[in-house]
Amino acid sequence: MTAFSFELLGTDGAARRGRVTTAHGTIETPVFMPVGTAATVKAMQPESVASTGAQIVLANTYHLMLRPGADRVERLGGLHTFMNWPGPILTDSGGFQVMSLAKLRKLTEHGVTFQSHIDGAKHTLTPESSTEIQRKLDATITMAFDECTPFPVDKKGASNSMRLSMRWATRSRDAFVDREGYGQFGIVQGSVFPDLREESVKALRGIDFEGYAIGGLAVGEGQELMFKTLDFTTPLLPVHKPRYLMGVGKPSDLVGAVLRGVDMFDCVLPTRSGRTAQAFTRRGTVNLRNARHADDLRPLDEECGCPACKSYSRGYLHHLIRCDEILGLMLLTWHNIQYYQDLMAGMRAAIEHGTLAAFAHQFDIDQARGDIEALGC
Amino acid sequence: MTAFSFELLGTDGAARRGRVTTAHGTIETPVFMPVGTAATVKAMQPESVASTGAQIVLANTYHLMLRPGADRVERLGGLHTFMNWPGPILTDSGGFQVMSLAKLRKLTEHGVTFQSHIDGAKHTLTPESSTEIQRKLDATITMAFDECTPFPVDKKGASNSMRLSMRWATRSRDAFVDREGYGQFGIVQGSVFPDLREESVKALRGIDFEGYAIGGLAVGEGQELMFKTLDFTTPLLPVHKPRYLMGVGKPSDLVGAVLRGVDMFDCVLPTRSGRTAQAFTRRGTVNLRNARHADDLRPLDEECGCPACKSYSRGYLHHLIRCDEILGLMLLTWHNIQYYQDLMAGMRAAIEHGTLAAFAHQFDIDQARGDIEALGC
Repeated sequence: MTAFSFELLGTDGAARRGRVTTAHGTIETPVFMPVGTAATVKAMQPESVASTGAQIVLANTYHLMLRPGADRVERLGGLHTFMNWPGPILTDSGGFQVMSLAKLRKLTEHGVTFQSHIDGAKHTLTPESSTEIQRKLDATITMAFDECTPFPVDKKGASNSMRLSMRWATRSRDAFVDREGYGQFGIVQGSVFPDLREESVKALRGIDFEGYAIGGLAVGEGQELMFKTLDFTTPLLPVHKPRYLMGVGKPSDLVGAVLRGVDMFDCVLPTRSGRTAQAFTRRGTVNLRNARHADDLRPLDEECGCPACKSYSRGYLHHLIRCDEILGLMLLTWHNIQYYQDLMAGMRAAIEHGTLAAFAHQFDIDQARGDIEALGC
Repeated sequence: MTAFSFELLGTDGAARRGRVTTAHGTIETPVFMPVGTAATVKAMQPESVASTGAQIVLANTYHLMLRPGADRVERLGGLHTFMNWPGPILTDSGGFQVMSLAKLRKLTEHGVTFQSHIDGAKHTLTPESSTEIQRKLDATITMAFDECTPFPVDKKGASNSMRLSMRWATRSRDAFVDREGYGQFGIVQGSVFPDLREESVKALRGIDFEGYAIGGLAVGEGQELMFKTLDFTTPLLPVHKPRYLMGVGKPSDLVGAVLRGVDMFDCVLPTRSGRTAQAFTRRGTVNLRNARHADDLRPLDEECGCPACKSYSRGYLHHLIRCDEILGLMLLTWHNIQYYQDLMAGMRAAIEHGTLAAFAHQFDIDQARGDIEALGC
């Protein structure tokens, strides 16, 4: 068996090149984790997800506890067997989805009571039950149960919310069943307030997790404030533990956050955009529903090796989307995941060569060039 | 270049083992052609379709002439390039869909005028324009433009309809541009009337096509009457040309029709059923939406080699369907196409060994056994 560990292989400024070792395989960082909410990365076979270079996927505790239920997933062999993803899986704690999706929520010191958005049934999530559910799901990386502090929030509100999350972090850690190669991450809260983020990091370091997530960002504060918050938060985190920025983000968010020392990311953007005709490319975003693609013989992205780009014209992809054909969603989702993985691989290589700043500069130029092309210039 | 040809490799009773040679590859018969209506076999990549053993796909002239348009498909390289299917493609003539999907139809000797079901635009299809559209689509096998006689119909109506189709068959043949390795099939009409079917076959044989389709079946007459019609129609057809039963069918239809000397089939059933949770298996049909599958660790079909059966439990497939996950449609469609291809491969092998009657008998037993299992006995 393998102990859960993080190895810092090199740095380039604040950016880090690392390796997470787990019971289900290693993860080269910085890494982007495709989201498989209901134990499926939507519109993709797991073999296809793996073929893009994805090393770890995320699944949602909230969705899976409601359907098909944690006990059922456990009976069916745990998430790795259930969804045919033998590699590492990270599950969130359910807290974020309870607040964004569930109805009639009641939050107390004990936890959160809520009604399922599917059938209205009443459920409770606590640090203890969230941790237990994630064990039943067989998550490689379990997240501590927290409250995702809304934005905007005043300092008093941010402080109260963060301190509740820190008390819950202690209870989550106590409930965590330590298994070889499995880990649990604490989540730093404190909104955009430096002293609250510092207090949160101190509390979590006192508990000592296998990794540290930065929560409460990408909730409407904007990229500038997010980067500013990272600027004062990541230096507080232990050097030899992985750092995970939750729910982020756009390609430019990933580049900026890697420059600021973040190791791990997840976001529904590439998969969700793939289902709404938006493709991420080396020349910016492209909306394939647009009529200008109808007669375009060129591939979506000439430098991309995914099936959408290797085997089809923009004209065909446009046709599929106009006809609401499932293959359109399948191909664009695959492309977007491929693009995100290529972007992360590019950043890993750049960090190894000490050229991340130049990489980020070229990224900005290329993305802007795409915008000009899209205008027909 | 290769001439379009049909080789009769062997027989087993009325059943035939053959090989169609085309500009885009050979087709071992009896063969089932998955339907790719809008230039995509719904919810599948073409590489996956090919991996099931599928040798030829069908595309719909009606859908493609409306969207994206035949000229556009031609500009984008023809169907083979457009949809990334280098193998043979058969296109129907559009006649059937005009009558079943379009609005405000007007049928004359000249052809059919109709309104698009998509945007209401007025279009005309004639034997000449249908044939020309199929050439622009780059169909390996072009179908003659006909009227699919409705059922039930009196003999006078069936006769008038069939004779119109025969006049249209002559015009379709005249409009067909002969290219090496490409072929055109005439369509036998005449409903369930032996003398009308005989008259139709004589008319078509006089024109001389590369193959002969049997149309106007699977339109509500039931399996018994369909088989009876085949019993008196297939013996009339030339031995050394392929025979295609249009729009058929259920697995038991395929077995019965192969026993009666049919070589080629197409049907939306496996793909459409895959999108409504119905799976075809060696033990009959299975509805995976049914709650009895929720905790079932077994594969859908233990003898099947498709990804749905190799990598997942029935419990997981049930979960995907309950959550309306796209992967559920993808996997069940793949399975159904795999099942149909395996069934055809089994029949081809049985004909080679002279054991098709035994194969058909075992098929009936296995399918019935599945029904018993489904009842929980």
